[in-house]
Amino acid sequence: MNGSEDKIGPKHSEVIGDFPGHALPGVFFFVIGLWWSTKSILKYVCKKHKQTCYLGSKALFQRLEFLEGIAVVTMTLIGIIGLQFFAGGPHLIIHNESPWKRVLRLQHLTLYFFFGLLGVASILCSTVSSIPVSLIKLMMSNAFFVESFIFYNHTHGREMLDIFVHQLLVLVSFLTGLMAFIEFLTQKNILLELLRSSFVLLQGSWFWQIGFVLFPPGGRTAWDLLDHDNIMLLSVGFCWLYALAFIVIGANYAFITWLVKSRLKKQCPSEVGLLKNVEQEQESEEEM
Amino acid sequence: MNGSEDKIGPKHSEVIGDFPGHALPGVFFFVIGLWWSTKSILKYVCKKHKQTCYLGSKALFQRLEFLEGIAVVTMTLIGIIGLQFFAGGPHLIIHNESPWKRVLRLQHLTLYFFFGLLGVASILCSTVSSIPVSLIKLMMSNAFFVESFIFYNHTHGREMLDIFVHQLLVLVSFLTGLMAFIEFLTQKNILLELLRSSFVLLQGSWFWQIGFVLFPPGGRTAWDLLDHDNIMLLSVGFCWLYALAFIVIGANYAFITWLVKSRLKKQCPSEVGLLKNVEQEQESEEEM
Amino acid sequence: MNGSEDKIGPKHSEVIGDFPGHALPGVFFFVIGLWWSTKSILKYVCKKHKQTCYLGSKALFQRLEFLEGIAVVTMTLIGIIGLQFFAGGPHLIIHNESPWKRVLRLQHLTLYFFFGLLGVASILCSTVSSIPVSLIKLMMSNAFFVESFIFYNHTHGREMLDIFVHQLLVLVSFLTGLMAFIEFLTQKNILLELLRSSFVLLQGSWFWQIGFVLFPPGGRTAWDLLDHDNIMLLSVGFCWLYALAFIVIGANYAFITWLVKSRLKKQCPSEVGLLKNVEQEQESEEEM
Amino acid sequence: MNGSEDKIGPKHSEVIGDFPGHALPGVFFFVIGLWWSTKSILKYVCKKHKQTCYLGSKALFQRLEFLEGIAVVTMTLIGIIGLQFFAGGPHLIIHNESPWKRVLRLQHLTLYFFFGLLGVASILCSTVSSIPVSLIKLMMSNAFFVESFIFYNHTHGREMLDIFVHQLLVLVSFLTGLMAFIEFLTQKNILLELLRSSFVLLQGSWFWQIGFVLFPPGGRTAWDLLDHDNIMLLSVGFCWLYALAFIVIGANYAFITWLVKSRLKKQCPSEVGLLKNVEQEQESEEEM
Repeated sequence: MNGSEDKIGPKHSEVIGDFPGHALPGVFFFVIGLWWSTKSILKYVCKKHKQTCYLGSKALFQRLEFLEGIAVVTMTLIGIIGLQFFAGGPHLIIHNESPWKRVLRLQHLTLYFFFGLLGVASILCSTVSSIPVSLIKLMMSNAFFVESFIFYNHTHGREMLDIFVHQLLVLVSFLTGLMAFIEFLTQKNILLELLRSSFVLLQGSWFWQIGFVLFPPGGRTAWDLLDHDNIMLLSVGFCWLYALAFIVIGANYAFITWLVKSRLKKQCPSEVGLLKNVEQEQESEEEM
Repeated sequence: MNGSEDKIGPKHSEVIGDFPGHALPGVFFFVIGLWWSTKSILKYVCKKHKQTCYLGSKALFQRLEFLEGIAVVTMTLIGIIGLQFFAGGPHLIIHNESPWKRVLRLQHLTLYFFFGLLGVASILCSTVSSIPVSLIKLMMSNAFFVESFIFYNHTHGREMLDIFVHQLLVLVSFLTGLMAFIEFLTQKNILLELLRSSFVLLQGSWFWQIGFVLFPPGGRTAWDLLDHDNIMLLSVGFCWLYALAFIVIGANYAFITWLVKSRLKKQCPSEVGLLKNVEQEQESEEEM
Repeated sequence: MNGSEDKIGPKHSEVIGDFPGHALPGVFFFVIGLWWSTKSILKYVCKKHKQTCYLGSKALFQRLEFLEGIAVVTMTLIGIIGLQFFAGGPHLIIHNESPWKRVLRLQHLTLYFFFGLLGVASILCSTVSSIPVSLIKLMMSNAFFVESFIFYNHTHGREMLDIFVHQLLVLVSFLTGLMAFIEFLTQKNILLELLRSSFVLLQGSWFWQIGFVLFPPGGRTAWDLLDHDNIMLLSVGFCWLYALAFIVIGANYAFITWLVKSRLKKQCPSEVGLLKNVEQEQESEEEM
Repeated sequence: MNGSEDKIGPKHSEVIGDFPGHALPGVFFFVIGLWWSTKSILKYVCKKHKQTCYLGSKALFQRLEFLEGIAVVTMTLIGIIGLQFFAGGPHLIIHNESPWKRVLRLQHLTLYFFFGLLGVASILCSTVSSIPVSLIKLMMSNAFFVESFIFYNHTHGREMLDIFVHQLLVLVSFLTGLMAFIEFLTQKNILLELLRSSFVLLQGSWFWQIGFVLFPPGGRTAWDLLDHDNIMLLSVGFCWLYALAFIVIGANYAFITWLVKSRLKKQCPSEVGLLKNVEQEQESEEEM
């Protein structure tokens, strides 16, 4: 790798980007992962308690889908406009003389655009009734597959560790896309949705990790980008962030279940009490 | 790559092919992608409005399938004969002394043959009733998988960028084959069919892109085939052509839906009007 | 590759094996592929005509399965014993001092053993009723996956073309295993079974092709094992053998369908005649 | 590989680990593979004989699941604590100056943690009724996928044969995870569960093989870690251990079936005798 680097020149061997550029998408993915897991759990819990008490009709979730679409489109529009404003703007004509940085900016523009398509699909599916609802899942898997494709072609001529952290990003966004595609093919499965959300959470926290590795803030010692041991260490850190995503989603699940149950008690105490007894009986029966 | 190139000799380092040789399959794939998306949307829309008004019976689509098969077989026959006529013809005996160009021509001949098999399958399925209809999907996935296999073995000893653009061709034809195979395994799914059509559209437009990159027409400056930045730029262009395919199919969907609805209004206005009110009520109910 | 070859020594650079050693498995796979396709077509055709005339009960196919198992086990036993007899026998203790040829013989022994397991599974499933029938498909996919694994580790230190032809063998046996595994997971699908049979036929004819390439019989000029053009030529030949497998299976299908129909006519002419009229009516209706 | 090794230094070229460190996980995986196969077979056999005689209610299996979860969590806790106690303990803060051995220990800690999560999932699913039961399968596939990811990043800078044996470990744990994921997506399938168990058994015995290859106990001659022939020999040994796993599971199946039948005879002889006659009749009918 080093040999070919020398040919390309020193321009590429410097690390491109900055800490906020990786922290912002990290926050975005973490928030949207948290939101998707919340939505999935809420749907699941409401469906289970539907026969006892009215909460969370189909219309409510459709409206949430609509608002989610608006939010995603807004965020991607802000991203695209910000990219033009702060960076002088990418040229929209493919031209082979453009320098490296312009290409990187075009790649980000494309990323934003495909996530924007996901937002548009959310809006369309929640307003036009003739469009199949699974279009959202398809565009979601699409957006993440395109992301993994772009990041795969993002790291030509970089250092070993820089490539490795982006390869893991490719891995996690590919897995997210794959999960969304399996969801698109099969029927509703709460665990698949939560698995996808955990991958999105992992991606968010991994963006932060990349930021800390490549641009150590506040005078901390920089990582040696050519040391194999650091690759092994980062692969461990990747697994820990994955475990963290699991714990976040588990806590979220426990919290929402508790919230819905306590709300149900207040609104229609008699029915729930009746149900709970039945449930307890069933549980004790199954535990026997 | 350059080192091994020198051993093989300068004969291979020149770019083989010309602009029309990439523009023609581009047009073919774009037209057939457009046709397949039109057919899928038409089937979907007609199925939804079947209970209100007669339009698009099963027999009509079977006849369309038959005509499609005839068209595909004709085009591949023209391709095969043209290959023999204009190029002096490939020898049909595998012989290890044949020069490189003859091998390339044999590869194209094989490509045409497998697309011809797809046409034959269309004809057989629409005439012989004992053959399962999913044979068409199987032969379709087959043709695209064979295409990706051949293009994978198409680029030995070429320049970096030349290899990269053909690798993306391998990717898109492999994905098309994969989608067709999933369609073969699962039941009807309009979105899967449209996804496959969008991959075919992407392949068509990518053939044009390859033509412009490798054989810039009209005195435009040639691309540097050894520059890594061009790879990153072309990966962005690939995504944009993919987005373009989505937009084309979305426009097609909107146009056909509008067309069918307006035709239905003219032919049997009373029933449709009745239906529309019911639909509007349902929509307003769901949006509530 | 050449550089590392020099280190290992000239012992490995000579091509190991002979023409009959590749022709025999070729015949075996071709015969079993033909038999499997015949069985699948027969089952399919008999199932369609079940309501008109008695032919091909479940018991008959179970007995065929039993006989197939016996045949496969016998053939693998002959192979294993022949390997011991003609070659002095592999040592059954893993020992790191064994020369290269002994390893190759152990690999063939393992191959035979797993195909023997497939035969045993056929026998067990057709005699013991408590074992699920899909075990046959599982062991079949197993045998082909193990074959692809072994051939993947079969070619260390060989010439480029020698490696390439074995890589294609890995590809086709992996695809056969994959098809058998999909059959194991899904319900009956005649086209999947025929696709698997066509891969087995392809494997059989590809063994012959390997024999002709590596050990040209009768004084024909040998192939240059280091020429890239030969790789491209052989990839074309691979596709043609695949097309040949399709044509063989298509002819087989037409022949069996014709045979079953002509037999049905003789045995119970009145009913079939009645049925045929109904079918013709249906066909003309669908073609309308 | 050797060239890059020299750069990293001689520290990495020595083989890290010892025989017990590979024998212990080997025993663990062998025992758990045996237990999982026993559980699957028991469930399958009990389900078939449910209509004749009471044995193995749902509650019993739920309690077994609970005990299994407790056992797994206990074992992983022992592993984690032992790792801290005997090795001085890994530092829990990601820091780029840590030496290689600390990273390896962190990797093992992560492995144990994810298998602990599997145990926790088993406990949760058998106590809290609102959690879907397929969570166990999901966490199982998760644990094995994470294991394959970690072992993939485990072997930087080692010798060829050392890398190869760990690559096969990656392969088998990836396949185990894949099988568990397919089980998670599809409904109950006894053969899939047994296939997964056989992969776990294979992994257990392969750990022993790794121990014997890298740390030959008792003065046996060490393996040449740079010889290609050894790779081919070990790939054969891998297949034989796989065949061994099949034989173990087959014997287990025969033993449990015999045990359940003989127990049923004692407990409720009349009914079983009646059933057996019916079965024999059916069998003779099917064999006819």
